[in-house]
Amino acid sequence: MEHRPSARPAPHLAPLPAGLPDSVPFVGPETLERQRGAPFDARLGANENGFGPSPRAVAAMRDAAAEVWKYGDPTNHDLKAALATHCGVGPENVVVGEGIDALLGLAVRLMVAEGDRVVTSAGGYPTFDFHVTGFGGTLDRVPYAADRQDPAALVARAAETGARMVYLCNPDNPMGGWHPPEVIEAAVAALPDDILLILDEAYAEFAPALPRIDPADPRVLRMRTFSKAYGMAGARIGWALGAPEVVRAFDRVRNHFGVNRIAQAGALAALADEAHLAQVVGQVAAARDRIAAIARENGLTPLPSATNFVSLDCGGDGALARRVLEALGARGVFVRMPWVAPQNRCIRVSCGPEAELDAFAAALPEALAAARG
Amino acid sequence: MEHRPSARPAPHLAPLPAGLPDSVPFVGPETLERQRGAPFDARLGANENGFGPSPRAVAAMRDAAAEVWKYGDPTNHDLKAALATHCGVGPENVVVGEGIDALLGLAVRLMVAEGDRVVTSAGGYPTFDFHVTGFGGTLDRVPYAADRQDPAALVARAAETGARMVYLCNPDNPMGGWHPPEVIEAAVAALPDDILLILDEAYAEFAPALPRIDPADPRVLRMRTFSKAYGMAGARIGWALGAPEVVRAFDRVRNHFGVNRIAQAGALAALADEAHLAQVVGQVAAARDRIAAIARENGLTPLPSATNFVSLDCGGDGALARRVLEALGARGVFVRMPWVAPQNRCIRVSCGPEAELDAFAAALPEALAAARG
Repeated sequence: MEHRPSARPAPHLAPLPAGLPDSVPFVGPETLERQRGAPFDARLGANENGFGPSPRAVAAMRDAAAEVWKYGDPTNHDLKAALATHCGVGPENVVVGEGIDALLGLAVRLMVAEGDRVVTSAGGYPTFDFHVTGFGGTLDRVPYAADRQDPAALVARAAETGARMVYLCNPDNPMGGWHPPEVIEAAVAALPDDILLILDEAYAEFAPALPRIDPADPRVLRMRTFSKAYGMAGARIGWALGAPEVVRAFDRVRNHFGVNRIAQAGALAALADEAHLAQVVGQVAAARDRIAAIARENGLTPLPSATNFVSLDCGGDGALARRVLEALGARGVFVRMPWVAPQNRCIRVSCGPEAELDAFAAALPEALAAARG
Repeated sequence: MEHRPSARPAPHLAPLPAGLPDSVPFVGPETLERQRGAPFDARLGANENGFGPSPRAVAAMRDAAAEVWKYGDPTNHDLKAALATHCGVGPENVVVGEGIDALLGLAVRLMVAEGDRVVTSAGGYPTFDFHVTGFGGTLDRVPYAADRQDPAALVARAAETGARMVYLCNPDNPMGGWHPPEVIEAAVAALPDDILLILDEAYAEFAPALPRIDPADPRVLRMRTFSKAYGMAGARIGWALGAPEVVRAFDRVRNHFGVNRIAQAGALAALADEAHLAQVVGQVAAARDRIAAIARENGLTPLPSATNFVSLDCGGDGALARRVLEALGARGVFVRMPWVAPQNRCIRVSCGPEAELDAFAAALPEALAAARG
């Protein structure tokens, strides 16, 4: 088989994708491991949940493996019903998708035409930005305030500029902070009628309290996932909660048979195992405390977190934090960091089991010395 | 929790999705089972492969279940390398995605702007049509010829009309027939430079022979899947083969972390188990013969098939075939049928294990009597 280039020009792309960058929102740890030629000792960079899924979810997925010759139910009927009960809404308020990433892409596709404005935060979730750019939207980025996304400022900017959509992540990724319910509820109350708020609640289960939002309010779409507290990131399954008329619109564009059958079975079992979820939330809280203690012992400042990760202020600029991150990586510890100033003075460390935090504790002093040296 | 409608209007959709129908490409068997209040005895409608995946793939998926707290590798590095070897191309010729359905959607998004023409067959794959309509393309449908999609006519129509893309499924879904390599190769040779041919080869492993196409040719994108011969429909994993510059463009729009980690592990193991694949291909061939024999015993005409299903000519019009299909469904046998005349004189029966074909054999005489009565 020949591997020569073709003499022919490739068919031209449509104008919108032709103008897109060849960008990739995140580099995965497997790529970094191949680059360094060895696996990481501690996989603490992607806000994965190393405490793992419910054993009942694992059993359900193992049982479902032999049945994988069947497509999954394209209506996600049983899972949708269970999620509706779990969230205190009707099944008509729930859409299940291939993780929040896919649901964000569909929401943007439904709402944003070329040239439409979309408001997010400077340093907010890059995959959301990737989708907005990918569908031709124009991003308008509001600064963080005190290391959290600023709900009032985001909604005000959207209202002032006639944006189609505004994105808010609470609890906050990548910084870890959170807003109490009344702050989110006030932002919702200030939303103009024709703007959709995407409230990314990927870390909802770790939050001390969640806002009350009328599920019939067509201005708000809440995003939830099995990737974080439920420990099923690789299963690619999440859901959105919204008004029936907004939820129904997803049927116009979604990949109807797109949700993996094994993931559906696992999610249903995970949702039913409330004891495991509570245990994980406790383990994550203890791991947060330990990460904070390790940080303080090394002269770093841990930021408050209502998520399964902790941002650690390295006490310098983005270049210093980048050197700390790289020095940790060279010592087998995968972490990530925020991508704009001033948040990028931090590294971001995901919670994980004791052995992985031991590896982090062991590597950090050397990594800091290397980064400062 | 209140379930009242909101007094507020929903934020308006972008113009393109606002104009889309609330259509669903397929109704899944689970929905039909809920409607009839009982499970089917034979699930023979969705071209699933009831002979199931390789036991090695099942074992790999079971092993991967406990590791599902990790995201899958977004570059699909190991699977891509294995697929490249398997297909005799380079990794730069391969893009892995969440099944052919997702890859078709991405290909359309990359190539088709609003108002662009896309050529397919009248009665071709509805999910492809769903994507074209969903991105604002205009479908131009060429008739089947002798119960197969007509490669020369499809390419000629695309060339005449300045279409951006032309879709051809070989072996043919929903009819089962196939074209020998030279017919496909001639169609490729006639392709103008600026038109992308989507060659959907979902049933490739059942075909007696496949065309030779230069992997560096940027005019052709071949689609393959683990859903059919590999028996992993519910895993949502497939791949496309194309020129590096076409393959690279997918990075601009794909859901980078979208492929399920368990599916990646299963696919890698399935690909390595060539003996199982050969066994399934043999079982499918035997099942095709049995379906054909059952059909003939009942006065129906089986069409030639190079797939894992057989279309059975019921000897009347679409209304008769629809009544046969419904009468089979009422007797616990799920089948589907083509959706336009004259192909819709047939019902389409997927290959499956003996017990399911027994159920089909038992139900067919009564179903025909009911449909004709």
